[in-house]
Amino acid sequence: MSSLDAVLSQIDANLDDSIDRLFDFLRIPSISTDPAFKSHCQEAANWLSAELNQIGFDARTEDTPGHPMVIAKGGEGQNHFLFYGHYDVQPVDPLSLWNSDPFDPKKETTPQGDVIRARGAADDKGQLMTFVEACRAFQQVNGQLPTKLTLFFEGEEESGSPSLVPYMEANRDRLSADLAMVCDTGMWDANTPSISTMLRGMVGGEVTITGPDRDLHSGMYGGPARNPIRVLTKILAELHDDDGKITLPNFYDGVDPVPADILKQWESLNHDGIGFLNEVGLSVPAGETGTSVLEQIWARPSCDINGIDGGYTGEGFKTVLPSEAKAKVSFRLVGRQDPIAIEEAFKTFITSRLPEDCTASFLLKNGSSATVMPLEAPEFGKAHQALSDEWPNPAVYAGCGGSIPVVGHIKEILDMDSLLIGFGLDDDAIHSPNEKYNLSSFHKGIRSWARVLDALA
Amino acid sequence: MSSLDAVLSQIDANLDDSIDRLFDFLRIPSISTDPAFKSHCQEAANWLSAELNQIGFDARTEDTPGHPMVIAKGGEGQNHFLFYGHYDVQPVDPLSLWNSDPFDPKKETTPQGDVIRARGAADDKGQLMTFVEACRAFQQVNGQLPTKLTLFFEGEEESGSPSLVPYMEANRDRLSADLAMVCDTGMWDANTPSISTMLRGMVGGEVTITGPDRDLHSGMYGGPARNPIRVLTKILAELHDDDGKITLPNFYDGVDPVPADILKQWESLNHDGIGFLNEVGLSVPAGETGTSVLEQIWARPSCDINGIDGGYTGEGFKTVLPSEAKAKVSFRLVGRQDPIAIEEAFKTFITSRLPEDCTASFLLKNGSSATVMPLEAPEFGKAHQALSDEWPNPAVYAGCGGSIPVVGHIKEILDMDSLLIGFGLDDDAIHSPNEKYNLSSFHKGIRSWARVLDALA
Repeated sequence: MSSLDAVLSQIDANLDDSIDRLFDFLRIPSISTDPAFKSHCQEAANWLSAELNQIGFDARTEDTPGHPMVIAKGGEGQNHFLFYGHYDVQPVDPLSLWNSDPFDPKKETTPQGDVIRARGAADDKGQLMTFVEACRAFQQVNGQLPTKLTLFFEGEEESGSPSLVPYMEANRDRLSADLAMVCDTGMWDANTPSISTMLRGMVGGEVTITGPDRDLHSGMYGGPARNPIRVLTKILAELHDDDGKITLPNFYDGVDPVPADILKQWESLNHDGIGFLNEVGLSVPAGETGTSVLEQIWARPSCDINGIDGGYTGEGFKTVLPSEAKAKVSFRLVGRQDPIAIEEAFKTFITSRLPEDCTASFLLKNGSSATVMPLEAPEFGKAHQALSDEWPNPAVYAGCGGSIPVVGHIKEILDMDSLLIGFGLDDDAIHSPNEKYNLSSFHKGIRSWARVLDALA
Repeated sequence: MSSLDAVLSQIDANLDDSIDRLFDFLRIPSISTDPAFKSHCQEAANWLSAELNQIGFDARTEDTPGHPMVIAKGGEGQNHFLFYGHYDVQPVDPLSLWNSDPFDPKKETTPQGDVIRARGAADDKGQLMTFVEACRAFQQVNGQLPTKLTLFFEGEEESGSPSLVPYMEANRDRLSADLAMVCDTGMWDANTPSISTMLRGMVGGEVTITGPDRDLHSGMYGGPARNPIRVLTKILAELHDDDGKITLPNFYDGVDPVPADILKQWESLNHDGIGFLNEVGLSVPAGETGTSVLEQIWARPSCDINGIDGGYTGEGFKTVLPSEAKAKVSFRLVGRQDPIAIEEAFKTFITSRLPEDCTASFLLKNGSSATVMPLEAPEFGKAHQALSDEWPNPAVYAGCGGSIPVVGHIKEILDMDSLLIGFGLDDDAIHSPNEKYNLSSFHKGIRSWARVLDALA
């Protein structure tokens, strides 16, 4: 029996113990956003640190202005990997919608197979424990961890990660490795694992257009007085052309076509774009013409007005001609699009279209670039093969329409790419009542990390 | 001495008594919108009714579901006029901004001349008493009223007039006359009286555009999912063309050019359109090109977005792609524009531009047509001459950008035109702290009505 086979057998044999440990972890109500649960966040960090110290790591919890970090180092070898996860969980309200206590985890049999039901079962306690339990199996079988590893867990992911960047910047050397691994994403479907290799970036914020210096009566002023809502709607309407393309000058600089082999793989997924839209009451793709729904979300930039506000918005009617109008606008970025250049282009787009007597002010967020993983790097190919060996279907190199901030921080602060492998499913109800994690996600997730670590060690 | 001269002399001689009576009236805090002042509204109605019974009218207060109406009939003659006014006043808060008790009227000397200071001094107690005191002078000099008169006062004008239309409909015969007279408007300036002959109408309401059946995350759906804010802004942006013209089909049907003689008169006013805009922080007329500010407000239709609302509008940022977006849109109408046709055109304008997967719903107010008085009718010319005889400058036939609902009701329910003559000034601070009415407005206002009644009797 090869070393890997022995590790996989050990994982199978130990599954019940692994579940018991996950249940212990899930019982700790480590809700990071609610100060009432602060001690439980500390407790979860301590629990994790103690577990890691038992399986060959030198682990410790380290204080921050918020909840503590857990950092663990162990193993030896040429290749050094940083694993990131988070031990905090979302709040559980409305509690009345849960069918059982969110912090009393249960194994349940459902038509789709066995599941683990609890807050954090998937996000992210169950997911991060797949990696920890894989490490444990190596330690048990070989008496040592598979390679040089740094494990890094935060307790503020569900509450905005205020301590993350300062901690990463202050601990750059201790966190640096060759490649990061993150287990906080999902599978394509229950039989098809996925490596997320493209994450969209984002830039945007709020624009306020001001006209008259006070609210006016539209009877007395309607006609000659500039209406900022009208100015705003007219400018926003020009952000897209008739083909759904975004009209900011040079916006598409750095947007490359999806490589043919990736596009072919995506096409083979037979993604049901219409079905995806049907689930939210839509039936016709509204974005750029000539690109599939999947491509639009994973590999094309977009622009959305996320909020708009001006004048009288209460019940009934007031004939006000308001002094100002606001919109929140965001751009999802792909490829090498430059958030700073796009922020500037957006400001210029607005200000250059302002009519007389109007001014614009901006409250813009710090933008983030898209993340595109280097698929040509050998680690990605090896991880892809390892996942494909474990699951019924070959692994997918997937995109992700949203952003995962920590991946950007790992790239920017630590100059590392990330291998984003996770075993969540769309129906896991993370952030919602009755969160679950498939037992198969947990079990085969542990086995998957064993295969990946074996392949990359 | 002619009969008119005798009446004018009587007015001059009686001025102090007239002021005393107005002060008695002003001391009654008849705030219609606040239930705590209900008995004072009744008291004001009773006071007015008693006054009218002393000067030759048969007056009574009549109950409504709200505050009472006062109706008074008197005089004889071929010509029968209906005079409308209101005895209720606006609330006085913030009381701290008043320099004296709003219900303890005072005569004050200011650099601009003597004024009467109190809530209601102008709006509308002072104004309506100009007519009552003119009637009194005729009664005193001639032993009879100048012609057949019906006086009609409501006590809900400042609180939406809920009882007005039902009362007018139920008392159509008692209120019908040859022409209505209303004293609730202003002068062009302190030396130039005005007859308001064009009031803009209005139609509009709220439109809600719905796309996805729930709020979506713009990372997960941004691109292929239809964004109702984007749909709404794009459609609203098409409501005006580059010349500021409104693009609803057939919108300008019934909009006539201002008659040359009226336009010439308006031009002679040397209205400072830029100064008018400067006062509210603007400097450039924003409406239709090629029309003056005064013409835009008095004689041209307009379209304003009075409110807009969609998605996340709080502090900070949420990357929501919302299910719906709303706007409140109103059109000011002139000439013979048909509010019903324009309401239909607006609905069609929106619905015909909806992309797939979007629906629009409407909450539209009852529209009102513009009011255009028949200047060719002899009463208008006679009233114009009468006012020009009284004041330093000749009278102006003015427009009015807003609506005066009672004028529409008088036209629709009683089929009568209205002679809108008032002596308010822009600095009267009606609805605001320290409301005042110039003593010259009161005194020469009484004299003006005497001249008008004499001319039209």
